[in-house]
Amino acid sequence: MSQFINEKDNLVTEAISGLLRGAQGRLARLDGFPHIKVVVRRDWDRSRVALVSGGGSGHEPAHAGFVGPGMLTAAVCGDVFASPSVDAVLAGILAVTGRAGCLLIVKNYTGDRLNFGLAAERARAFGLKVSMVIVDDDVALPDLPQPRGVAGTLFVHKIAGALAEGGADLGAVTEAATRVIAGVISIGMSLSTCTVPGSPRESRIPAGQAELGLGIHGEAGVEQVALRSAHQAMGLVIDRLRPFMGSGPHVALINNLGGATPLEMAVLTEELARSAIASQITAIIGPAPMMTSLDMQGFSISLLPLTDADHAALAAPVALPAWPGLHLFSPPEVLPLPDGLKPIQPTPSAHPKRRALVQHCCEILIAQEAALNALDAKSGDGDTGSTLATASRALIAALDRLPLADLTQLYRAIGMELSQTMGGSSGVLLAIFFTAAGDASAGGKTWIEALVEGLHRVQQVGGASLGDRTMIDALAPALDALPRGVSAAAAAARAGADHTATLKSARAGRSAYVNAEKLLGHNDPGAEAIARLFEQV
Amino acid sequence: MSQFINEKDNLVTEAISGLLRGAQGRLARLDGFPHIKVVVRRDWDRSRVALVSGGGSGHEPAHAGFVGPGMLTAAVCGDVFASPSVDAVLAGILAVTGRAGCLLIVKNYTGDRLNFGLAAERARAFGLKVSMVIVDDDVALPDLPQPRGVAGTLFVHKIAGALAEGGADLGAVTEAATRVIAGVISIGMSLSTCTVPGSPRESRIPAGQAELGLGIHGEAGVEQVALRSAHQAMGLVIDRLRPFMGSGPHVALINNLGGATPLEMAVLTEELARSAIASQITAIIGPAPMMTSLDMQGFSISLLPLTDADHAALAAPVALPAWPGLHLFSPPEVLPLPDGLKPIQPTPSAHPKRRALVQHCCEILIAQEAALNALDAKSGDGDTGSTLATASRALIAALDRLPLADLTQLYRAIGMELSQTMGGSSGVLLAIFFTAAGDASAGGKTWIEALVEGLHRVQQVGGASLGDRTMIDALAPALDALPRGVSAAAAAARAGADHTATLKSARAGRSAYVNAEKLLGHNDPGAEAIARLFEQV
Repeated sequence: MSQFINEKDNLVTEAISGLLRGAQGRLARLDGFPHIKVVVRRDWDRSRVALVSGGGSGHEPAHAGFVGPGMLTAAVCGDVFASPSVDAVLAGILAVTGRAGCLLIVKNYTGDRLNFGLAAERARAFGLKVSMVIVDDDVALPDLPQPRGVAGTLFVHKIAGALAEGGADLGAVTEAATRVIAGVISIGMSLSTCTVPGSPRESRIPAGQAELGLGIHGEAGVEQVALRSAHQAMGLVIDRLRPFMGSGPHVALINNLGGATPLEMAVLTEELARSAIASQITAIIGPAPMMTSLDMQGFSISLLPLTDADHAALAAPVALPAWPGLHLFSPPEVLPLPDGLKPIQPTPSAHPKRRALVQHCCEILIAQEAALNALDAKSGDGDTGSTLATASRALIAALDRLPLADLTQLYRAIGMELSQTMGGSSGVLLAIFFTAAGDASAGGKTWIEALVEGLHRVQQVGGASLGDRTMIDALAPALDALPRGVSAAAAAARAGADHTATLKSARAGRSAYVNAEKLLGHNDPGAEAIARLFEQV
Repeated sequence: MSQFINEKDNLVTEAISGLLRGAQGRLARLDGFPHIKVVVRRDWDRSRVALVSGGGSGHEPAHAGFVGPGMLTAAVCGDVFASPSVDAVLAGILAVTGRAGCLLIVKNYTGDRLNFGLAAERARAFGLKVSMVIVDDDVALPDLPQPRGVAGTLFVHKIAGALAEGGADLGAVTEAATRVIAGVISIGMSLSTCTVPGSPRESRIPAGQAELGLGIHGEAGVEQVALRSAHQAMGLVIDRLRPFMGSGPHVALINNLGGATPLEMAVLTEELARSAIASQITAIIGPAPMMTSLDMQGFSISLLPLTDADHAALAAPVALPAWPGLHLFSPPEVLPLPDGLKPIQPTPSAHPKRRALVQHCCEILIAQEAALNALDAKSGDGDTGSTLATASRALIAALDRLPLADLTQLYRAIGMELSQTMGGSSGVLLAIFFTAAGDASAGGKTWIEALVEGLHRVQQVGGASLGDRTMIDALAPALDALPRGVSAAAAAARAGADHTATLKSARAGRSAYVNAEKLLGHNDPGAEAIARLFEQV
């Protein structure tokens, strides 16, 4: 099985049940599974014109996802890509149609036309007012006598829906729907066909090719082209639409055919803004999956000339997650970068004793470069010594510009230097250590307390605890002991570092990915570096 | 190219631009492309606690799609699956953080932890209050010291977002986020890996296999199983989650990892309702793509113990299309089928003259069965004669139960008989013809006018016009002439039928798919049937 489904025959009924699970109070279905699959508004009182749409399934969220106040009153669902039966459509009409009547919104496929058409006749025999419109927005095959209905159908749902919700009568709603249908044009492009449940995906479209003008049931397109870019793809689509466009402002509906990623859809939206018709697009709906073709990796663009009345109807808010809303199409807003990204260079200041200490520490680490590399080679990639030595050399070179007399600023400056000169995770962690120590020092902590605070922050950010076989296993006990003097700190660091050789597994840092046997018997090189630093300082 | 993108290196910046095109007034980005990719709320006034999240791209709509009132204040976007830089995070923090401070919501990946962590330190050095929480909701690898952050992050965004929007201080917001993180668990399952832009899709998961517990960057899962059904898939996921669940009510977030269809997601939702934990799930978020992994055909389930306070925070409305809202999880509501689906059997009545006419017409068509089949074989599948003869025989058999004395009811009853006994499109179209004629008769039309109305309806529903090489080419002129007598009608029908032999292409009906050369010189069999009917009646 290549899909998360159960029996193919139960697919649509189970999906409708799943949809309804989260729609308590908003949606219901008619009794009549499996043959009658109709989703209706739960809050409907038949006082307004009902809008009934539907067709084969596989186009979700169309159509059941658009049932709700301000859009459809009922959706009649067939099996995947199969028209619902006359009885199902009739059930949908009868369930929601009162004296105000009902408009059927039907995509232009023979099965849908006939079954909705006959259901309409049967409903009329009950004395109900039923009108029907056929959506035929696809311009992919301009010579086809009966253009297909595709994503442009959403314009009809939303504009007719807003009018019906507002109390317009059946004549006015039908007239608006008819006018929208006359104006809307669509075309699609895809890099794949779709996977019809229970069947393997048709491999009609070769890798790297795109098909232009294909249908929403996997019908072949009018042309295959080698896909070079999103820019080219949107250009081809626009080229097909332009001959059918009038002048003046339009709204574009950017539809995901199912399997395109949000990143792709966003790039295509950007390309629409760079296209030859961009100046005519004043508003957009989407990008979003609205009228899909199962998992087809494609998109479609639908265009409608935009009048003030239609703009208002399209913009009227509806509480349907599937409806992405109408938005003005406008250039991205760009705000200036905030101040503070360029680090303020601290004012250098002198403090001979601290300067000597920093230099001495750095020289100790530089001297241990080879030894630490060799130790690291036993459990890692052998660069701990070089990483620390490089950073130490850089720090020595920076001594003249460090604010040595101001401990708070000195900690911060060391953090900044390390973040700029020391690569990898350890550079970031030591930068956090010193920057946080500066923070704590500014808050009134002593120099040792500040370093302890820095360590806490490193542990929070890095996620390592004592015993995780990291530098912390030496640094934490050393800082704890430091108030009792450097010797005590050195002894504690040594004990901590040596203990790392007994730790079977590393629970943080890069060594977490190394085999336990390679670790046992060797000190963690970071912890060893700390021990040697305290021993030799 | 297998995706609708341009240069891989510009993918994220172009996608952000595309996103912003439809977000005028709501969202902006910071200057600083390509390195600094930060999306911020346009309406932000820094008076409340800012929420900053982000990480690698490829998880859309996370994170930029959740920037807005009631959720995130800023999203810091890295390249696909790559952590944003420290500078980018710092820019995001500085752009939105006022005196109320800022909470960083970070998924548990080393790069994100370190870069957000150091940025936080730098921001603190400016005197800003910044706290940071690490989301680690993935229970796929229970022995991992640092569980990954996946879709459960959305709970943190929404709950912390509602509190911050409501004016809670940084301590309260951070505490709530920490509490949510402690409670939330997630696991994913997929039938495919993802297509990283610029690379072919990894084929790690064989066809028909599902991987349980995989990560949102294509990291391998803990187990591969043969997928048998959606039921089994949900069962496996729930089995992994249950050991981590407490008692009491939970909310489930049903996340599409990108490439699952809405049908699959709805079936999985139904399966959640049938699962062993169903009674504990009182509310759901989704199904929807929230934290995706590009085009991965998979889903994840995240669970959070549901308190009243969290319920309120999750249910607080936000105007973000990407947020599907919180809904009660409850059984589908089922409404009774409306009356009227079972056709009311008309009361039979006698009208010897009409009965004879109907019988005579039927016998004419039965007699022409072979001839019409032979004609149809020249341009179609040779069954026009049989289709009409079968329907005629059924109509003769039904004569005793027809309401012959009431023309309106008779038309409707013939329509009903034909829709039940005559297959294919022609059965539906003739049913529409007679049902609509009944409708018109009820409205006061004469018997001929009523048939003309029926024909109009057939043309509207079927989409065929005069000259489209259908039955209409004979029927329309015949009905026009019928007021002048049957002979006139027969002559008109004959002329119309013969004219079809000169029509190069059929523009409606099945013959639309037949080669012009096969059509020329032969009458359309439907039109010929009408002509013979009128000639022989």
